[in-house]
Amino acid sequence: MIKEELKAFSEIFENYLKEVMSAQNNQYSAHYDAMKYSILLGGKRLRPFILRAFYLVCGGEGEDFLNFAASLEMIHTYSLIHDDLPSMDNDDFRRGKPSCHKAFDEATALLAGDALLTMAFEIAAKTKNISSDLIVDGISELAKLSGADGMIGGQIVDLAIESKKVPIETVLDMYKKKTGALLVAAAKIGTILAGGNYDMKLAAEEYALNLGIAFQIQDDILDVIGDSKLLGKPVGSDAKNQKSTYVSLKGLEQAKLDVIEYTNKAKNALKVFDGDTSQLIELANYLIDRKY
Amino acid sequence: MIKEELKAFSEIFENYLKEVMSAQNNQYSAHYDAMKYSILLGGKRLRPFILRAFYLVCGGEGEDFLNFAASLEMIHTYSLIHDDLPSMDNDDFRRGKPSCHKAFDEATALLAGDALLTMAFEIAAKTKNISSDLIVDGISELAKLSGADGMIGGQIVDLAIESKKVPIETVLDMYKKKTGALLVAAAKIGTILAGGNYDMKLAAEEYALNLGIAFQIQDDILDVIGDSKLLGKPVGSDAKNQKSTYVSLKGLEQAKLDVIEYTNKAKNALKVFDGDTSQLIELANYLIDRKY
Repeated sequence: MIKEELKAFSEIFENYLKEVMSAQNNQYSAHYDAMKYSILLGGKRLRPFILRAFYLVCGGEGEDFLNFAASLEMIHTYSLIHDDLPSMDNDDFRRGKPSCHKAFDEATALLAGDALLTMAFEIAAKTKNISSDLIVDGISELAKLSGADGMIGGQIVDLAIESKKVPIETVLDMYKKKTGALLVAAAKIGTILAGGNYDMKLAAEEYALNLGIAFQIQDDILDVIGDSKLLGKPVGSDAKNQKSTYVSLKGLEQAKLDVIEYTNKAKNALKVFDGDTSQLIELANYLIDRKY
Repeated sequence: MIKEELKAFSEIFENYLKEVMSAQNNQYSAHYDAMKYSILLGGKRLRPFILRAFYLVCGGEGEDFLNFAASLEMIHTYSLIHDDLPSMDNDDFRRGKPSCHKAFDEATALLAGDALLTMAFEIAAKTKNISSDLIVDGISELAKLSGADGMIGGQIVDLAIESKKVPIETVLDMYKKKTGALLVAAAKIGTILAGGNYDMKLAAEEYALNLGIAFQIQDDILDVIGDSKLLGKPVGSDAKNQKSTYVSLKGLEQAKLDVIEYTNKAKNALKVFDGDTSQLIELANYLIDRKY
């Protein structure tokens, strides 16, 4: 059921993205081609979905959340484009297709990433029918959580600990920032835009942070026991790269237990809300059961 | 006199930047080191100065413009860091010092640029004592003018026309976007934050756009007749790279006349304002007389 809901939303959302990105087409618009290519490569649209779910749970109405939902996806996409560059992870493929710098070139991919990041804030600022106070609050959270102390901070930790043995706390810190922060942004901004109070914002953060950790541990598990065909990428690459992961440090069985534990923490955080949280609970269950 | 004013402001502004950037210092903060390194490399701080000047001309008071002034400098700095990367201009030096990816490494420079761009919007959203409506308006202009249709669009044109003979219109389009757009952001946001009206915003744009073109033509001229010692970079590089510039297309003498013409256009735009515009007039005169 949640699988169908995710799919239905992602189709609506992709049409919206196509509209947003359709403007440009001239002699010097290689960056637009690259931006569109990468943002329309597919994916679960998890962050926009979470933003929408919290928006609805907190009583938000209409489609005015869509601007910020697109912002999140633009930031997620730019981070993947820059991550794949030769100076970073040097990945030639993304979702089974050539990565942006392979489909275009390095300079165009770099600038397309920059432009998506910039456009994220432009489109957020253009949100309609929501008070400017809340928009500023949303922009502030978006920038903080995707920035030097958030998502980018997580990438810095990831680069620094490559092929190094580090304590579990460092791995968790990386998960919280690299994956958790943008999920927190999604949940928190959905709550903010619907006028949610302090407790609700805190609960949204608690849900998303724990979900993010569970998601990332599940990723580590799938890298050990997953099906490379379903995953669309080779398994065993963490061990090959001598990467410190949750699984390598705590063992496979403990990791499996902890995924459940973090997922329960995420679900428990939802008790604060009066609205219907069943979709968010199903989402959490769905993500730990995933095979890819 | 304007030279002293620029210098005095840049000293105050740099202290403010140091404060803003001082927060982080831990095991995984290489990106912060790189961000600080690049933003504190010096420079005229022209964009913050122009923002402040329009803020004052429009009756703005206090120092509440400083957040957006820092945003502009962060965006300017990130664009230089990414511009210097091997896949772009591949410049090993910036202001006579190793460029960011040489002082650190490519991945750190890439992420430091991303983080500065992101922080620009975080600090803008944290502006105090100015209404959220105006802050949202400012953020919207900042993103639009530094984004895919603005500064980044100009870099795309610049890359596309490298070593190519193109019409003067294309060169002007590139100047307007690559240099002009961020100067327009400075002038317009200063006007917006002080509560300036539509005509004032238009005049601010007119001033900054023409100043940007004049500035860029002057750059081309200095690349032909400048003193490499004063400039801190070799002269003649445009001709060596067979670059289409204003000078190569219109000739040195016409270019010199046109710098004066564009500067006059910039100064004429200021007539709309009741406030004292002498600083902005002096700035325009100073920039065309510059030798570096």
